[in-house]
Amino acid sequence: MAIEIEKKFLLADERWRAEVTESAPMRQGYLNREQRCSVRVRTSGKQAWLNIKSATIGAQRQEFEYEIPLEDADCMLDTLSHQPLIEKVRHYVPYQGHLWEIDEFAGDNAGLIVAEIELSHPDEHFARPDWLGQEVTMDVRYYNTSLSRHPYRNWEDGKEGLA
Amino acid sequence: MAIEIEKKFLLADERWRAEVTESAPMRQGYLNREQRCSVRVRTSGKQAWLNIKSATIGAQRQEFEYEIPLEDADCMLDTLSHQPLIEKVRHYVPYQGHLWEIDEFAGDNAGLIVAEIELSHPDEHFARPDWLGQEVTMDVRYYNTSLSRHPYRNWEDGKEGLA
Repeated sequence: MAIEIEKKFLLADERWRAEVTESAPMRQGYLNREQRCSVRVRTSGKQAWLNIKSATIGAQRQEFEYEIPLEDADCMLDTLSHQPLIEKVRHYVPYQGHLWEIDEFAGDNAGLIVAEIELSHPDEHFARPDWLGQEVTMDVRYYNTSLSRHPYRNWEDGKEGLA
Repeated sequence: MAIEIEKKFLLADERWRAEVTESAPMRQGYLNREQRCSVRVRTSGKQAWLNIKSATIGAQRQEFEYEIPLEDADCMLDTLSHQPLIEKVRHYVPYQGHLWEIDEFAGDNAGLIVAEIELSHPDEHFARPDWLGQEVTMDVRYYNTSLSRHPYRNWEDGKEGLA
């Protein structure tokens, strides 16, 4: 079990693209829609994971993750997960000692791009790249669980972040 | 992924106890309450598993199971699972080439005893021991997911099986 501390931001512009060192397409879905925790299946290339995360709103969350066979994950995504699945490309951008994960969504969430950073404690300092936009860590609409239920395509307003 | 075919029975009497070769206390809980599938955490002794099972009513179900660290499971049971947890002792009884699993429930389901047999295909022949009672495979009340939500203690009638 890990305590996960992550912060989530929108992007100010496209300059981050020049700094990408690696990109991986991902497909993920949820086996539940509970208040208490999320149960997520994710595939990336030939790997797959099952992830259980407490649904505490904010930056600090309990998280459990286990690698599972790709064929199990594909079967769970296609037959047991809530639809639509979340499809995205995850881009990795190192910046001053931290690794940013920038998720560029596709399918029903096309148009949405979000940058995340994982910290090892809540007060850890990190440098803000110039291309970083508004923080949305506390905005539940940007949770992947929310994006599965209320895709970005259907948002009527406030696409720039918190009202 | 395995296709699980199991049949579930009540017990006619106590004669099965003389045939038990092994018994293990178990604690289990559910991370979701969905129509589509169940996500179960189970501990037995020093081992623990995460189990995902399609919620198809009847004898044939998709099932995925992964062993996980005991401390992860205990944390998920105590903080993320729906309460009350299901507590039971599982007794193993071999009979004419099959292994019966007899679950003797405790806690909120005390008084309930159920025998299960797993088959490798729907038409597989198995011998019925004398101590076997009424079949309840198709009675959703005996699903462990149901017992977590509507414990045996609260059943008002029909405790002998289908009306």
